[in-house]
Amino acid sequence: MEKEYLMIPGPTPVPHEITQAMGSNIFNHRGPKFKDLIEDVTEKLKKVFATSNDLFILTTSGTGAMETGVVNFISPGDKVISLSNGSFGDRLANIARTYNADVENVHSEWGEPLDYEALEKKLDEDKDGKIKAILVVHNESSTGMMNDIERVSKLRKNHPALMIVDTVSSLGAVPVEVDEWNIDVCLTGSQKALLLPPGLAFISVNDRAWEVMQNCTQPVFYFSLQKAKDFLDVGQTPFTPAIPQVVALKEALDMILEKGRQYSFDRHYLMMQSVRKAAEGLGLELLVKEEASASRTVTAIKKPQDIEIKDLRSLMRNKYGVEIAGGQGKLSQEIFRIGHLGAITDMDVLTTIAALEMSLVELGSKVQLGSGVSKAQEVVMQKK
Amino acid sequence: MEKEYLMIPGPTPVPHEITQAMGSNIFNHRGPKFKDLIEDVTEKLKKVFATSNDLFILTTSGTGAMETGVVNFISPGDKVISLSNGSFGDRLANIARTYNADVENVHSEWGEPLDYEALEKKLDEDKDGKIKAILVVHNESSTGMMNDIERVSKLRKNHPALMIVDTVSSLGAVPVEVDEWNIDVCLTGSQKALLLPPGLAFISVNDRAWEVMQNCTQPVFYFSLQKAKDFLDVGQTPFTPAIPQVVALKEALDMILEKGRQYSFDRHYLMMQSVRKAAEGLGLELLVKEEASASRTVTAIKKPQDIEIKDLRSLMRNKYGVEIAGGQGKLSQEIFRIGHLGAITDMDVLTTIAALEMSLVELGSKVQLGSGVSKAQEVVMQKK
Repeated sequence: MEKEYLMIPGPTPVPHEITQAMGSNIFNHRGPKFKDLIEDVTEKLKKVFATSNDLFILTTSGTGAMETGVVNFISPGDKVISLSNGSFGDRLANIARTYNADVENVHSEWGEPLDYEALEKKLDEDKDGKIKAILVVHNESSTGMMNDIERVSKLRKNHPALMIVDTVSSLGAVPVEVDEWNIDVCLTGSQKALLLPPGLAFISVNDRAWEVMQNCTQPVFYFSLQKAKDFLDVGQTPFTPAIPQVVALKEALDMILEKGRQYSFDRHYLMMQSVRKAAEGLGLELLVKEEASASRTVTAIKKPQDIEIKDLRSLMRNKYGVEIAGGQGKLSQEIFRIGHLGAITDMDVLTTIAALEMSLVELGSKVQLGSGVSKAQEVVMQKK
Repeated sequence: MEKEYLMIPGPTPVPHEITQAMGSNIFNHRGPKFKDLIEDVTEKLKKVFATSNDLFILTTSGTGAMETGVVNFISPGDKVISLSNGSFGDRLANIARTYNADVENVHSEWGEPLDYEALEKKLDEDKDGKIKAILVVHNESSTGMMNDIERVSKLRKNHPALMIVDTVSSLGAVPVEVDEWNIDVCLTGSQKALLLPPGLAFISVNDRAWEVMQNCTQPVFYFSLQKAKDFLDVGQTPFTPAIPQVVALKEALDMILEKGRQYSFDRHYLMMQSVRKAAEGLGLELLVKEEASASRTVTAIKKPQDIEIKDLRSLMRNKYGVEIAGGQGKLSQEIFRIGHLGAITDMDVLTTIAALEMSLVELGSKVQLGSGVSKAQEVVMQKK
């Protein structure tokens, strides 16, 4: 008998109670039962988003929510700034470029912090408000870098550019304060820190973003937020939603809100620390050096020189049942990534480090068994 | 204790075995287990589509698949013909119009057959091949009309226009012969005749459609079929799929293919006949007069003069647990619709007719208890 540990930055394991909710009977999405459900989960989601803005549930992958965040607010020809330091930041820019935005790249090396100074300069120089939007990813799961959205918000000051923020792999696990940080459009997916399977995505829209949308000339149909609003006003979605995930969402939100957001933030912070300490204990190099910039949901670790990532992943998967992620794009041969978010626990982290140690030893690396686990244990023991 | 009967044209009830498959553990969508799964279900789906064309699984509602069928093949300014006689045909036209196609309407009254003669004339007159696509819905679930796709195909002859066909509420329940009928792009959803919850959609693409796509200038990202193809070539989807529904799809397809397509076709034909005979027995008028044009998955019935549809639906729902659908758009106050597709059975139809009779009597209509049920029974008894 093998137990499987899904330690990738999403999709994440789903708790048993939520899996059970997925098995609910299917019912009419244009009837009173669905109306009660969607109104309930929408209000609860707003608490997790820390917002009183409008908020919508979309039946799509996270990337569909990224597209929704672009096509409803950015007209062809609009100048937008893409702040990026990884694969998902680049994806957001690519979506805007696909839909004919005039995208100005403010890109840093993958694994380096965002270039906040360059952003500030560009905004300061833009006296006539040509820049219509700033596109930025909160948690760059391709590198394990957490970007500072509050700082981006402060740098924007009174510039009219919309902040369109991808929080797919952060919201729920780390503070995302949509109203306090003035995030005009905030989007996330179901399959990361929100304890759900993939299939749904969520997006919040503030008044300023609604105003911009009124004049947006981009064609939009399935991802139309105006349609989403018109239907939510009568307790529906414009198109048939992924009902099992919506039912499960209620269970997940009740679970999250019962313990409170802070409980989840603390838990993810501890897991991040334990993985980082374990890597240090093993003498492995972290891609993101500063803990302050480190993702609390995924950690990227550089591989030992003499080991191939595909061999490490195969051995961990096949012998120990632990699935970790490789690198993406230009880092695919250099790093491996451990996801520690959602229903993953600190004990799963210990198991993963143990499997990592055994696999490294078997592949010929000169690490000491226990040298990573023991460091992770020291962190885990601090939990109250 | 109340049992619920979901008798609407989708979403449809889901068999227990498939619901259980939805509860599978979440796993890596970029690993070998997912590769095996998607390759298996894609091949099995092709059998249900009766095609050897490429076929893709999308994480979206059916309307997202309609958009996919438009934006990958129709460039802004392209002349397309919309053949429509109901709400979903109009939706397909609206999507094309939203994305700046030059849409020529060949529309019939809702509940009337398509205007095949007008289509033939337009194609014959289009000597220089200006018409790039014909948009048509197979089963117009808003009215209970089944359109004749084979006839559309024959009328097209050698005209180069692509046939883009929405089979959302028909595929699996009635013959859709993608290859035999030369359907260039055929799309459907998970939550109708394919026994699954909502959350996935499927689309097939033939060589001619791929050629058109190479020159399509419409922007597309999330719904890009080129991306879908590139990723399917390595056993993946471009973006995180709704994993529970993909796992359940395997169970559903095994269930469908074990009995064979003909079994499903026969079953749906019988249910259609039994509902129509019951309506006759009750002295109620069918919206679609000719059985040959009648949908085999949903039947629209005109309400008795002295009864409000919302009262009828409420009573059936609240007292008997039977959920039927009202009309859509311009027919919303005139018809009610009974869905009989997917995991719905002939016995569910009898239950529904019984509830309909009791509700009509309670609302003051002069129908005889049993006058509809008995007619439906005569049909159901014919089953082998």
